[in-house]
Amino acid sequence: MTATAYSQLEDRFRRASLVGDAAGFLGWDAQVLMPEGSAQSRAEISAALQLVTHEALTAPEVADLLEAAGEDSSLDAWQTANLREMRRRWVHKTAVDARLVEAMARAESACEMAWRAARPASDFKAVLPLTEELLRLSMEAGEAKAAALDVSVYDALLDQFEPGGRSADIDLLFDDLAGFLPDLTQQVLDHQASNPPLPLDGPFAVDRQRDLGVRLMEVLGFDFTRGRLDVSLHPFCGGTPDDLRITTRYDTDDFTSALMGVLHETGHALYEKQLPEDWRHQPIGSARGMAVHESQSLLMEMQACRSSEFLDFAAPLMRETFAAGSDTSGPAWRAENLTRIYTRVARSLIRVDADEVTYPAHVILRYRLERAMIGGDLRLADLPGAWREGMDELLGVTPPDDRLGCLQDIHWYSGAWGYFPTYTLGALAAAQIFDAATRAEPDILPGIARGDFTPLLGWLATHIHGRGSFLSTGDLIEEATGAPLGAEVFRAHLERRYLAK
Amino acid sequence: MTATAYSQLEDRFRRASLVGDAAGFLGWDAQVLMPEGSAQSRAEISAALQLVTHEALTAPEVADLLEAAGEDSSLDAWQTANLREMRRRWVHKTAVDARLVEAMARAESACEMAWRAARPASDFKAVLPLTEELLRLSMEAGEAKAAALDVSVYDALLDQFEPGGRSADIDLLFDDLAGFLPDLTQQVLDHQASNPPLPLDGPFAVDRQRDLGVRLMEVLGFDFTRGRLDVSLHPFCGGTPDDLRITTRYDTDDFTSALMGVLHETGHALYEKQLPEDWRHQPIGSARGMAVHESQSLLMEMQACRSSEFLDFAAPLMRETFAAGSDTSGPAWRAENLTRIYTRVARSLIRVDADEVTYPAHVILRYRLERAMIGGDLRLADLPGAWREGMDELLGVTPPDDRLGCLQDIHWYSGAWGYFPTYTLGALAAAQIFDAATRAEPDILPGIARGDFTPLLGWLATHIHGRGSFLSTGDLIEEATGAPLGAEVFRAHLERRYLAK
Repeated sequence: MTATAYSQLEDRFRRASLVGDAAGFLGWDAQVLMPEGSAQSRAEISAALQLVTHEALTAPEVADLLEAAGEDSSLDAWQTANLREMRRRWVHKTAVDARLVEAMARAESACEMAWRAARPASDFKAVLPLTEELLRLSMEAGEAKAAALDVSVYDALLDQFEPGGRSADIDLLFDDLAGFLPDLTQQVLDHQASNPPLPLDGPFAVDRQRDLGVRLMEVLGFDFTRGRLDVSLHPFCGGTPDDLRITTRYDTDDFTSALMGVLHETGHALYEKQLPEDWRHQPIGSARGMAVHESQSLLMEMQACRSSEFLDFAAPLMRETFAAGSDTSGPAWRAENLTRIYTRVARSLIRVDADEVTYPAHVILRYRLERAMIGGDLRLADLPGAWREGMDELLGVTPPDDRLGCLQDIHWYSGAWGYFPTYTLGALAAAQIFDAATRAEPDILPGIARGDFTPLLGWLATHIHGRGSFLSTGDLIEEATGAPLGAEVFRAHLERRYLAK
Repeated sequence: MTATAYSQLEDRFRRASLVGDAAGFLGWDAQVLMPEGSAQSRAEISAALQLVTHEALTAPEVADLLEAAGEDSSLDAWQTANLREMRRRWVHKTAVDARLVEAMARAESACEMAWRAARPASDFKAVLPLTEELLRLSMEAGEAKAAALDVSVYDALLDQFEPGGRSADIDLLFDDLAGFLPDLTQQVLDHQASNPPLPLDGPFAVDRQRDLGVRLMEVLGFDFTRGRLDVSLHPFCGGTPDDLRITTRYDTDDFTSALMGVLHETGHALYEKQLPEDWRHQPIGSARGMAVHESQSLLMEMQACRSSEFLDFAAPLMRETFAAGSDTSGPAWRAENLTRIYTRVARSLIRVDADEVTYPAHVILRYRLERAMIGGDLRLADLPGAWREGMDELLGVTPPDDRLGCLQDIHWYSGAWGYFPTYTLGALAAAQIFDAATRAEPDILPGIARGDFTPLLGWLATHIHGRGSFLSTGDLIEEATGAPLGAEVFRAHLERRYLAK
């Protein structure tokens, strides 16, 4: 018996996924513990693995197999959806030729390296030529993909991170947010002005911070027999569903930020952990896209772990953890004050430090600017000025230099054009999904309050995680929550958390 | 211009080498830090990488390319030698079909797992059926390779680890050793009986041991911007020439064993580091074989670092390192006593703990037994008895159980039949190479005495490391030392170190 076209495709994508996992672990290693002098030789290994998967998925016979499998009437619904996802990946892979792939890899690497030097020096001009070159190549790839997908260049780039994502939909959502957030932000600031949180006095030893992080990760459902927590300069969640690798970085003056970062990454990890095991290493068994991924980290961080229910549960553990080094008996360590710390709002310059009320403004700015640059309406050379104007308009603050302005994020300088909107799509989805979950399963909030996340994880496994990429992002959210993705539930969440009382 | 057959082969072997490096880092990760529950999913990733390289090197067009390149008269000496090494690897890869490769991988994994349980229980019978199956499959592979290489089955297995190694040569060397070592051992024991070393009183904190290891690794020439020192259950040297990963394990009651283990692995690492950089990722740019590799670790450990020159240099560093936790001012911490500790000889049961005088007997026993089993002269079921008899004959001690006998080493239970002789070939080569080096370069021993290994490393770079796999093992040793590999220099070294004074 010969293998069907479909099963041959499954074999091929499975192999590519396994090789991709190897590349993922090497990436984790490079961020966490690789010696500094080994970067160049590591880049060659990673490039070879990338080439192996690229060639496996773009070989001429893949087109024939996709066509033959498309005529196979014996496929069930999941196999059919898997074939759809295979085709989507194949379109992205084959749209750009090997020459362009290689030129982009080189340009990304050179530009990112230049950015690492330019950012601390606040020297935008130093990185401008390499960024222009990278933008040109990204647009060339975007144009090729746009033709293959029959969408705009921006949407083709967005589609790489958020399959099926379209700027027409994002415009509606972001205009809605941009309409109510400035007033809401001012109301929250007025509301909080009279009641600032009490500071927590450190220092907070790194090993204690780690112990607390591990303990709370386990509360959320992280399995340390199939995962690790380590340190890296830029926190991330890597690895595979069977070997999840979370990183953080510790600040001995403030444990609250690293701790919440760990719980954020745990949200990413739990999504990966609960992906459909029967479809491991198949496209349909993968996470749906970056918006849904971010929704799962933000659901854990913003919806679950910054709630008063969770902080009531966690406060005694925090006091106990740091009692040896600090006086944790005072009012600053009560759950009420810890909740105030974890829901503090401020107009700030740096996206990654922003609270959930002002965060969307940072993203909307970047989304508007990258669309303008890709659409030819804004020259890259004029980015610093446009950034300052946009910050003033959206947030009412302006950066004193480009380090705190348009040089702060790595994305554009590493070729990730079209990525930014997924952060705020994720925030909206997180609010909407958590709201649906807590309405459908009444024990979720009481569970969180007693440190039992199984009701929440069970609901997410059924309605989000276990569905993998079976549905589109839009259908997934609509089926799980009963409504298309919108900004209303997010708005209601902000008003309830930040303006009530 | 189309690429020549030879350059196409270079591309193909380069890619296979890079993918193999990825597999190597995953292997390091699995030994050092992978969560226990991730072993199964990691095995799938490793198998996929192995399949990628196997297919790349056994594709039908490789045979055509090898033939065409063989007729290319424009190749220089190194390219010609590289082609020879490519062909050698291709013969090994293509001799066994995919079915057998997969069956062996499964049998190795199952047998090794059973051995891990059987060893502490001293239960040879429990692992016997799986070992018989693995031996049968290994012999099937050996027979296929024997036909392709036109050698005996044992030599075909040996050739996997020691290219060009032949048992007829080993028999001569090992018979020589077996002839003089029993008497020599007794003489050394008599000589040392009246002068036992003073014990060093611990405990020795792990972080201090690590500091000392790092300091001495740097003295030997290890570059920590391109390498690391970590902890694993079984010490090894992994990674690549640009990112060398050494591991050890610490015993707080005794620092001397882990420290010398670290210097042993450093010898392996320095060989890799100094391989010819222009031939990175080509067969000829790789280490020559396991005998030469072991010669380089033993050259550093046994010849250089157990010498009184090195221990005179290292003794003050040892005293300084452990002064905070121990009284290091007494006679036990003098270089003379440390040298006595590091040159202590004893008849013992465990190979990995053996001194350099008795070590060859352990290896000769295993060599004779595996040849007998592969030749059909010894049934695997009769191994425990044959082991006890052999130990009595060669070393004058017999194990009380199989845990301390034929179950002590992983090799046979993981499919590494034909590996053992390389340890003692390496010991002979280490003595012969170090002797030649110190005669040719008079500053080597004074350098070691002042903690400067550059004279030694320079000589090794020129005569051993930098030659990669350009020459056969035999020619490499003969060109470097002026004589074929023999036991005489090793014997003279033992007599000088252990019987003089």
